[in-house]
Amino acid sequence: MSVSKIILDCDPGHDDAVALLLAWGSPAIDLVAVTTVAGNQTLAKVTRNALAVARVAGIPPNTIPFAAGADRPLVRVQEVAAEIHGASGMDGPALPEPNIELDKRHAIDVIIDTVMSHPPGEITLVPTGTLTNIALAVRKEPRIAERVKEVVLMGGAIVGGNWSPCAEFNIVVDPEAAEIVFSAGWKVVMVGLDVTHKALATAAVRERILSLGTKPAKFADELFEFFKEAYRISQGFDAPPVHDPCAVAYVIDPTVFTLLQAPITVETQGKHTVGMTVVDTRYGKDGGADCKTFAATGINVEKFWDLVVDALQRIGDPEQ
Amino acid sequence: MSVSKIILDCDPGHDDAVALLLAWGSPAIDLVAVTTVAGNQTLAKVTRNALAVARVAGIPPNTIPFAAGADRPLVRVQEVAAEIHGASGMDGPALPEPNIELDKRHAIDVIIDTVMSHPPGEITLVPTGTLTNIALAVRKEPRIAERVKEVVLMGGAIVGGNWSPCAEFNIVVDPEAAEIVFSAGWKVVMVGLDVTHKALATAAVRERILSLGTKPAKFADELFEFFKEAYRISQGFDAPPVHDPCAVAYVIDPTVFTLLQAPITVETQGKHTVGMTVVDTRYGKDGGADCKTFAATGINVEKFWDLVVDALQRIGDPEQ
Amino acid sequence: MSVSKIILDCDPGHDDAVALLLAWGSPAIDLVAVTTVAGNQTLAKVTRNALAVARVAGIPPNTIPFAAGADRPLVRVQEVAAEIHGASGMDGPALPEPNIELDKRHAIDVIIDTVMSHPPGEITLVPTGTLTNIALAVRKEPRIAERVKEVVLMGGAIVGGNWSPCAEFNIVVDPEAAEIVFSAGWKVVMVGLDVTHKALATAAVRERILSLGTKPAKFADELFEFFKEAYRISQGFDAPPVHDPCAVAYVIDPTVFTLLQAPITVETQGKHTVGMTVVDTRYGKDGGADCKTFAATGINVEKFWDLVVDALQRIGDPEQ
Amino acid sequence: MSVSKIILDCDPGHDDAVALLLAWGSPAIDLVAVTTVAGNQTLAKVTRNALAVARVAGIPPNTIPFAAGADRPLVRVQEVAAEIHGASGMDGPALPEPNIELDKRHAIDVIIDTVMSHPPGEITLVPTGTLTNIALAVRKEPRIAERVKEVVLMGGAIVGGNWSPCAEFNIVVDPEAAEIVFSAGWKVVMVGLDVTHKALATAAVRERILSLGTKPAKFADELFEFFKEAYRISQGFDAPPVHDPCAVAYVIDPTVFTLLQAPITVETQGKHTVGMTVVDTRYGKDGGADCKTFAATGINVEKFWDLVVDALQRIGDPEQ
Repeated sequence: MSVSKIILDCDPGHDDAVALLLAWGSPAIDLVAVTTVAGNQTLAKVTRNALAVARVAGIPPNTIPFAAGADRPLVRVQEVAAEIHGASGMDGPALPEPNIELDKRHAIDVIIDTVMSHPPGEITLVPTGTLTNIALAVRKEPRIAERVKEVVLMGGAIVGGNWSPCAEFNIVVDPEAAEIVFSAGWKVVMVGLDVTHKALATAAVRERILSLGTKPAKFADELFEFFKEAYRISQGFDAPPVHDPCAVAYVIDPTVFTLLQAPITVETQGKHTVGMTVVDTRYGKDGGADCKTFAATGINVEKFWDLVVDALQRIGDPEQ
Repeated sequence: MSVSKIILDCDPGHDDAVALLLAWGSPAIDLVAVTTVAGNQTLAKVTRNALAVARVAGIPPNTIPFAAGADRPLVRVQEVAAEIHGASGMDGPALPEPNIELDKRHAIDVIIDTVMSHPPGEITLVPTGTLTNIALAVRKEPRIAERVKEVVLMGGAIVGGNWSPCAEFNIVVDPEAAEIVFSAGWKVVMVGLDVTHKALATAAVRERILSLGTKPAKFADELFEFFKEAYRISQGFDAPPVHDPCAVAYVIDPTVFTLLQAPITVETQGKHTVGMTVVDTRYGKDGGADCKTFAATGINVEKFWDLVVDALQRIGDPEQ
Repeated sequence: MSVSKIILDCDPGHDDAVALLLAWGSPAIDLVAVTTVAGNQTLAKVTRNALAVARVAGIPPNTIPFAAGADRPLVRVQEVAAEIHGASGMDGPALPEPNIELDKRHAIDVIIDTVMSHPPGEITLVPTGTLTNIALAVRKEPRIAERVKEVVLMGGAIVGGNWSPCAEFNIVVDPEAAEIVFSAGWKVVMVGLDVTHKALATAAVRERILSLGTKPAKFADELFEFFKEAYRISQGFDAPPVHDPCAVAYVIDPTVFTLLQAPITVETQGKHTVGMTVVDTRYGKDGGADCKTFAATGINVEKFWDLVVDALQRIGDPEQ
Repeated sequence: MSVSKIILDCDPGHDDAVALLLAWGSPAIDLVAVTTVAGNQTLAKVTRNALAVARVAGIPPNTIPFAAGADRPLVRVQEVAAEIHGASGMDGPALPEPNIELDKRHAIDVIIDTVMSHPPGEITLVPTGTLTNIALAVRKEPRIAERVKEVVLMGGAIVGGNWSPCAEFNIVVDPEAAEIVFSAGWKVVMVGLDVTHKALATAAVRERILSLGTKPAKFADELFEFFKEAYRISQGFDAPPVHDPCAVAYVIDPTVFTLLQAPITVETQGKHTVGMTVVDTRYGKDGGADCKTFAATGINVEKFWDLVVDALQRIGDPEQ
């Protein structure tokens, strides 16, 4: 099994928390850094949440750097998703006191230092929040565009949206950052609502996870419980979609997803369409010359949850 | 069988021509006026084409008014679709000399006079070109918005586009007119690419039509032949989509289509998305309070072609 | 003295009323039609106001057509200027019951018919409200673009604005209509805030007018009194700017103004600049090749008020 | 005399070169760092030019950090001003080989480190190029917004433009960065075309400078000579405007300029107005509550050139 070195850039967030558990627990992932960005909630809140989840996951202090990044979008006024994630950004489970100290560096420097200190093509960036950190990093150090293996991001949609008729939250909150990331020249895999709206934490899935009998499993279930109510009320879902671990799952096993290769741009100027990821399907199979952007169109839901359950099983019941 | 009184507002155009044949031949349609608008080609060309098709169809002079309308979009610079419809706007078949004289009135006055002189709820508008005429008419005489039965238009798409990644030609060429029409307060049924890209003039369809053995049937087939090549070259289709008669077919028999009720707005400001028909599917079954806009999502292709064949059969071989 | 035939397209409005008095009273103007458009207030209100002012001015019934036009902007949601013109659109003076009947035709048909029935180069259009009627007219009958002598409009600004930092009310309320008018190919003279903000109804001016001792003069003064308060409160003026008669004054005597010849376009897409009249001063004296747009940069205030006083004097005290 | 500590963020650029000479020579300026940004030419070229000018000015190696920054605008495609500054970005004079080594840090880190290591209110940022570095710095370290004394930038215009009818080059090339800088909450003084188009290197000015008889004076004159031709051809100037030293001159002696306090925002969405600095003059003297943005409206040209001549005199003929 090949092991992928990733930087998880996140804004926990219920589904970011599961993404972090999946990344930490999976034997196919070598998690080399975790960075945080304002998004689902303020930077202070999501950073604290990330550290708390790290403790739940049993990530030992001084193993990998955790660093805080951008506290707001590049150009637009900040919006948070309190109705989805609550006032804390991760309402529901009780959170342990963090035992990891934040890296002194800014997230974008951790990203840049990590990418530049590894051989070309080794580091995969996995952003599961707004793309502000990634955009700032590639504008500060343009050479990472060639050095990164790929960017596998949760965000956007080929069709539809959740924050507007045709925009997904992570993109629409900082569309300029998203445009920078999609056009930076690296390979981008967009894992969007088209698949994440099928990655539902159903009763059956939750039972399977709970039956692991561990504290992290119970923690995940409490996240799902809060998320379920939030999604039921705000968007009419029966079971909550668990977006962010899908991006990590793609890195672990790309065959969980089917992909479409096509040019993707971000609308930054529309009246009704700001934040839309415009996927141009008119170029046939390989998206036309030099197309390096991909969108996930299908997901093997069973394989996806297998990966999550497996990771939780491997995490077991770590000492806290 | 109920009979619907319609005004066909068109820019022939190969598929407009078939729409006119369908409207004239169908016993479920009472064609009360034909108006033309710049779109697929210049106003002079599409108007001349409309009159020529009328002669092919055997519409007797002095039966119904034919009137020319807007010669360009409201605000934007004019674009025509020469690569789809050729230099004449209806390349392919030889066209007879028109024998109908144009009404002296402007198309928008024909639309207004017709709607206002009929009882409320009686006239259906069927635009199959850009929406400039309809927009001008409802701005000149706002009362038609309440008096028209419905607007059944060919244009737009729920997903994708043909003139840009997410815009259809009829809408993107005059997005301001489209925005006026979609927001005017009347019932709008959008018959867009989602269904018209399935209404293909396949070899089987063409054989069936040719076997009618009439001149109008042969004329239709010659239209399909040119259209086939144009669509093969420009968009990679095996058989050409025949967009415009779909709108007429909806009026004849709404059960040919499945509809989605949802708010629809037109993007007039986007960089990548100008002319997109933004269909907001987040409101559930009835599109939320007071939603009067609908989009066709499915088509019974067989029933559709049955209607076209039936209309051609009824037209027979008119004296020219 | 040459006499100019004009159509006054207005939305009275205090200053529109003065413009109508000036046009009717001036021997250099042959007022051939008056059309109304929604703007300062709703169409019903401004049309009623126009007819009332006609009675104050002593315009005999059946002399010239008065016709109502567009009841809202082309694309945008309607806005009115109640804080400037009051609930009636012309608060202040008591208004007489109109004695003129509205023409049955729509304003845009009156404009088209009048222009097309006169020799080329004879009719000047003088819009002092939003440009919706003029835009609709030129889109319905494109030939008026060559047949009109010139369009002398009150609206816009080279620098600054009154409804936003850089937009004037008449333009910003229907920027798409304004864009149509400025780009239609005819000669356009923009008489904007750059000069109208200097055409102030000062105490001295008002005294001079009142001293005429006629009812129309008293009526004008009552308009100024209301306008003074409105402008003092809303925009901090000591004496109110009397915008609309400036456009009429330009037609009477162009030497009242200095002009700049330069390309002028209207911003329809900006976030902060929608409705701005963008005057491109980079082309030198004649505005570059084929430039047919002009902006007033200076006004001889004394000569301007002389024209107004003279017109009121000629109107005298008409029988009502 | 109070001495101001400044960071000069520039893209030399003929006028940037003069700005650097002025900053280095003036006894009222303590130049604590020089950072470069892509703008007039590519980052490599303007950085090399900055180092060459430092040698002309006699800035000793290891005195102050010189650091390179952003190599392109935040979101937009890069544009350079080759027709103004030539292929090298500073065509005209022969350039000495640089003797200063670039700081290893990125410009935005030099800016952040410098600001954060000085007491609050001590460092003034003086950007004379695109605002990409400043925008990146304040997004990476938001605390500099409160710690910087003020941002005195060359860019924008209250009226008009040079790269479009209403946009100035430094702003329009990266309007998103400009919007970030103008809205960051710190005091911003915009020294724009309204004044810099009056800071002309006339024959008299050049004679005065040449008569100093030093190599840096001769170097400045050669810059003016090239600039004169470029501005004559491209914009019809008789003598070239010398934009960038105006911002430095404001820091040296604010009384050289008159200011207007008013809200300033940057248009990022307009079709004709992208990059316009929208100055809202409707709020009276202090620009309304909490207004911290200012625009220069007038310049004492003589005092300005006195400062430049004085600085060159003090620089004298440094050993190279």
